[in-house]
Amino acid sequence: MKIFIHNVLLDDQRVDISIEGNLISSVEPTKESPVVDADTTYIEGEHMAAFPPLVNAHTHSAMTLFRSYGVDLPLERWLNEKIWPNEANLDPEIVYWGSRLACIEMIKSGTACFNDMYFFHEETARAVDELGMRAMLGFTCFDHFDPAKAEQLKHDFEDYARFVAEWPSSSLVQWAVAPHAVYTVSGPTLRWIADFAREHGMRYHIHAAETQTECRNSLDQNGATPVRWLQQNGVLGDNLVVAHGVWLDDDEIRMLGDARSTVVHNPCSNLKLGSGYAFKYNELRDAGVNVALGTDGCSSSDNLDMIEAMKFMSLLQKGWRLDPTSLPADETLRVASLGGYRAVGLNGGVVAPGCLADLMLVNLDSIPFVPCSQSVCNLIYAAHGDVVDTMIVDGKIIMQNRQVPGEEETIREARRVVKKLIKV
Amino acid sequence: MKIFIHNVLLDDQRVDISIEGNLISSVEPTKESPVVDADTTYIEGEHMAAFPPLVNAHTHSAMTLFRSYGVDLPLERWLNEKIWPNEANLDPEIVYWGSRLACIEMIKSGTACFNDMYFFHEETARAVDELGMRAMLGFTCFDHFDPAKAEQLKHDFEDYARFVAEWPSSSLVQWAVAPHAVYTVSGPTLRWIADFAREHGMRYHIHAAETQTECRNSLDQNGATPVRWLQQNGVLGDNLVVAHGVWLDDDEIRMLGDARSTVVHNPCSNLKLGSGYAFKYNELRDAGVNVALGTDGCSSSDNLDMIEAMKFMSLLQKGWRLDPTSLPADETLRVASLGGYRAVGLNGGVVAPGCLADLMLVNLDSIPFVPCSQSVCNLIYAAHGDVVDTMIVDGKIIMQNRQVPGEEETIREARRVVKKLIKV
Repeated sequence: MKIFIHNVLLDDQRVDISIEGNLISSVEPTKESPVVDADTTYIEGEHMAAFPPLVNAHTHSAMTLFRSYGVDLPLERWLNEKIWPNEANLDPEIVYWGSRLACIEMIKSGTACFNDMYFFHEETARAVDELGMRAMLGFTCFDHFDPAKAEQLKHDFEDYARFVAEWPSSSLVQWAVAPHAVYTVSGPTLRWIADFAREHGMRYHIHAAETQTECRNSLDQNGATPVRWLQQNGVLGDNLVVAHGVWLDDDEIRMLGDARSTVVHNPCSNLKLGSGYAFKYNELRDAGVNVALGTDGCSSSDNLDMIEAMKFMSLLQKGWRLDPTSLPADETLRVASLGGYRAVGLNGGVVAPGCLADLMLVNLDSIPFVPCSQSVCNLIYAAHGDVVDTMIVDGKIIMQNRQVPGEEETIREARRVVKKLIKV
Repeated sequence: MKIFIHNVLLDDQRVDISIEGNLISSVEPTKESPVVDADTTYIEGEHMAAFPPLVNAHTHSAMTLFRSYGVDLPLERWLNEKIWPNEANLDPEIVYWGSRLACIEMIKSGTACFNDMYFFHEETARAVDELGMRAMLGFTCFDHFDPAKAEQLKHDFEDYARFVAEWPSSSLVQWAVAPHAVYTVSGPTLRWIADFAREHGMRYHIHAAETQTECRNSLDQNGATPVRWLQQNGVLGDNLVVAHGVWLDDDEIRMLGDARSTVVHNPCSNLKLGSGYAFKYNELRDAGVNVALGTDGCSSSDNLDMIEAMKFMSLLQKGWRLDPTSLPADETLRVASLGGYRAVGLNGGVVAPGCLADLMLVNLDSIPFVPCSQSVCNLIYAAHGDVVDTMIVDGKIIMQNRQVPGEEETIREARRVVKKLIKV
């Protein structure tokens, strides 16, 4: 498979991009009349700009089905009355269609890869493979401080290891562990899972330091704030992906930096749930933490549009610091793309020879790009997901002219299964 | 002119909406086989939801041409190096095409009306009339504390009064005064313009309390913070529209409430320029202030999408207060629609008999509305402007199926004139 993209805008220069197999093979100043092999797919880029695609580094994809449900409530009522009672109705079919809806929404808004924490992960994997995306899917678990449940989990993880070992190597899905949080998983289990992850070369995805209450409770119960507690249980490492991290203190930031861990910022979720706004991006970056960006699930903030999430992240940094030079556009894009690829351990997020052939092409004739003084600023400050015309993942075109196969069927089936899911 | 919209979702109920002339004549539970006169335009609403359209209550429309230009800089450098030197190149043709681009962008994202402060207002009026929108356009002025300039302004305002008196009554444009700010217009001129506005039944549009620096400087120079200084100069009243108001103290909020003034929040601009984030929405509302919403110009925040602005406003309230119940979705929509109509003195922003026939219809088959538990939550938390299918303003369809006449020509001409505008 070869692809040739002619005369496309990249970093405000006109270039030709060649793809061979699943890698970018060359990026060169554009030629007027390029010679293209008969077996190469040709894309005319005159009306398009190329960017590295985005990685949604923390989400719960099938929760698309909870979009606009149970909002504007206090956190406890939202969880106890709206989310948990309905999640008891989850089944494989519901998760499959919810995940498909999520994948289509993400592809249509420039996301090539996502890091997921939810249930029935094999159904999400099926949706991901069908649509040609990448994903890191976590085995999501809780022991609720019950030793019997903790013991059972060890068996579940051995089953999981066998499942993963048999997973086809052709798939773009990779597997991770995803213990939920320090308030739902006991210290010994957190540690046991950390050893399991290291043994199996997996990443460790967990919520931490999302709310002030969580941090206070952890201090009361464990004598340590969440990230300190993770450190004491041997969890910190370069395979750790911490979702949220809005309430980290300076020492925790230093620990995460020393360990070369990832922290995923979810600005829309943190604002909407009233969790916090003062995400310490500069401090995390300067400490050596890999910072990535996510939307969280659609039950927390109601879409999966990473282009919108980039604007929220950048503007929130400038806003709460009262400094318009904070987190400029090109750095925001690096967080949302390169930071995400690093979070899942992949060589993407840069449009350069030798990198994974993942690309988004946006429509320069859409109003957010008129006029276009600095295309990365148009992308982050003016655009939303609907400017994306074409998505290339692993050297394959998975969307062109905004058409993703199966969108209508997915919308229809999502509407059907949501009636099985939401009953209260 | 009559319009009948059949079986459309309104407040999560299925209704039929009838329009006669420029008013909504009825809203009734939907009928299966409605009888429609031959002279009535029929719109099938089965796949749509109706909402009151949005009012962009503070913008500088022609600044679309500065989109993505000179961003991520400190405020002083941005103004001195990027905006002001290029604004010296403004001419009527540049403002006309910049305004047309703005109008098309606003119509395509659900905005029926805007409140503008810029130069060559007659060119903006021409664009507004051609596209069938509503607007309140301000005579924008400065005296820079120069008594000669202040004297000249009085003559300019007499010319303006004659111009407005001759303005065709068929136009949906209304006229206002728009002295720029307390740091660019002297106290006596602020007062003189307030008297002029009252004499001519006009609204008074001004920037105030946008940055901490502005408030400190006003206190130093005038012995009063900006809104106190406006009060001391006789400016407060129910015709006053204050843009920004991020740094108001409790007494200023009380003064604005007692006067029944409007304060327009511009969350994206305030964040992006590092002006402030803690807009006191609850306090303003409770004091009796009419709160409206705006995008500011595209040089401050780079698009005119009021649906995005609603999400920023709502999430920012929840975020900085650490309270997810702050500013729920239906209240956010009221601010962005009803609050805006009140700001410009019009009877719109409610879909009910007797109100102005201004409506937006959104596409329920777009992913942000799948699934749709509470349509107003889908609109505010999941959607962007591209979900809008149809816009009706003053009883006329000005967009259907996302087609606005002249979009291609406008994009072409905007790209041409931006080369005359941006030279440094």
